[in-house]
Amino acid sequence: MSDLTQSMRDVADRVYRQLDELLRPVEGPRGRVIDAMRYACLAGGKRLRPYLVMSSANLFDVKQKNALRVAATIEMIHCYSLIHDDLPAMDDSDMRRGRPSTHNEFDEATAILAGDGLLTEAFAVLADGATHDDATIRARLVLTLANAAGIGGMVGGQMIDISGDRSNLDLAGISELQRLKTGALIKFSCIAGAILASADDTAFAALNNYADDLGLAFQVVDDLLDAEGTAEEIGKPIGQDADRDKATFVKLLGRDGARNKARELADSACARLDLFGDKAEPLRQVAQFVVDRRS
Amino acid sequence: MSDLTQSMRDVADRVYRQLDELLRPVEGPRGRVIDAMRYACLAGGKRLRPYLVMSSANLFDVKQKNALRVAATIEMIHCYSLIHDDLPAMDDSDMRRGRPSTHNEFDEATAILAGDGLLTEAFAVLADGATHDDATIRARLVLTLANAAGIGGMVGGQMIDISGDRSNLDLAGISELQRLKTGALIKFSCIAGAILASADDTAFAALNNYADDLGLAFQVVDDLLDAEGTAEEIGKPIGQDADRDKATFVKLLGRDGARNKARELADSACARLDLFGDKAEPLRQVAQFVVDRRS
Repeated sequence: MSDLTQSMRDVADRVYRQLDELLRPVEGPRGRVIDAMRYACLAGGKRLRPYLVMSSANLFDVKQKNALRVAATIEMIHCYSLIHDDLPAMDDSDMRRGRPSTHNEFDEATAILAGDGLLTEAFAVLADGATHDDATIRARLVLTLANAAGIGGMVGGQMIDISGDRSNLDLAGISELQRLKTGALIKFSCIAGAILASADDTAFAALNNYADDLGLAFQVVDDLLDAEGTAEEIGKPIGQDADRDKATFVKLLGRDGARNKARELADSACARLDLFGDKAEPLRQVAQFVVDRRS
Repeated sequence: MSDLTQSMRDVADRVYRQLDELLRPVEGPRGRVIDAMRYACLAGGKRLRPYLVMSSANLFDVKQKNALRVAATIEMIHCYSLIHDDLPAMDDSDMRRGRPSTHNEFDEATAILAGDGLLTEAFAVLADGATHDDATIRARLVLTLANAAGIGGMVGGQMIDISGDRSNLDLAGISELQRLKTGALIKFSCIAGAILASADDTAFAALNNYADDLGLAFQVVDDLLDAEGTAEEIGKPIGQDADRDKATFVKLLGRDGARNKARELADSACARLDLFGDKAEPLRQVAQFVVDRRS
């Protein structure tokens, strides 16, 4: 197992335990929504976003326990978005990560509430004094995450994605869609450490640039995997994007073009981190991992 | 027009303008989700929760512009909950406030996203420096609202409400359901002014007790209106609760019993405010209004 794989597994384990602790089961009918939140959040997955949070925190003098709480919140937000995106009225996906999607395992109403619950809980965790002693940092985390997740970020991107116009998007349009729908949360993950450390503008700029390249590379590879992958490998039905005549990076650039684009972006992402020296090695490895991954 | 009616209209107008300013329309396909958020938020309604925020702020030396932002966020959260509660998978309500509900006017996917967007935006507004200079207060507002809206509050209450068990609830059970589903947001509204003012524990205790009585009175009257009202008056189909064999305060106490209970609670709520003297008159008027309202 590579260092990166081992290190990602370690973070995934710690994030699992943190989420398990934050989302405790309760008795009675209210417990059902928490069970659904746990089902969606404790299912595994690569935990890429939490790994980015922990790796960006490691560039600075940030307490691990603080970073871990932020890592858990970004996963809550990511999982809420998957629950709602999978709903029949949205992408109508029966499967997620090789298991029934949340509305399929529970029911639609419970899945809607579980997503609402995760979104809300994420902000409660960030605003809690346990996340950082300094309330200015807690408020900044809340504001930055809300902007990344909201209408100027993920929700806005999903709106564009489900609108009928995607088949007409050009490269600029699909890059903008990606920047909102998946890029914004990746960017939050990359700068979370800098927020926790009250880092200077130079550090923020470097991490923002890294995140832009990484997020775009991630989406290009997602499109490649959708075009090339097998359902078994990626745990969800494949070819969905092509079936619906959606514009993708593969359609616009071809497979080789998309593959080259992803590699260029990963190289560019790594170069953004020069000022951090060796401390940024985990983030550089993530950029290569994102391009080389098979699922 | 009574003083209270005039005063509630004034607040409603200001909240409308604040929401209009916070939720600006945008061009392009992303604009659709914002249009849906505006449709749900700018539709009118009594704006009871914002009025409670402004009235609790007026007990203390709180800047009007700060209180108004908080008033707008509680309305965003309230409207998000109405959008999601009305969805076909939840209460399946075609109408809301005498107009098509949001999923009926737009579509289900847009309605889900509009709810998600309002929930997220509310936390962005609270965490923004424009809401208060002191980040400790902003973080406390976020934490308190998230706890009120989440699994230990509104989301938890809605989960109980849609579970099959409601027909078996006794008075304690239905009071607990109300405390979570509607009471928690009313409580946040009542203590928001105290949070903005960093008030002392005595003030918080008084407002918490007032909110407990008021919230319960509000729900008892809601059940009465559902049993007695006309669809035209309350702007949604009536008799829904009875049709579904749900336990309500009217079923458990009878109409006269429920009416007496609501009056007792309103009197008790008013008595909780003695320490604030005349400044609390608007909050006392609200308690009477909640009991006397016909819609």
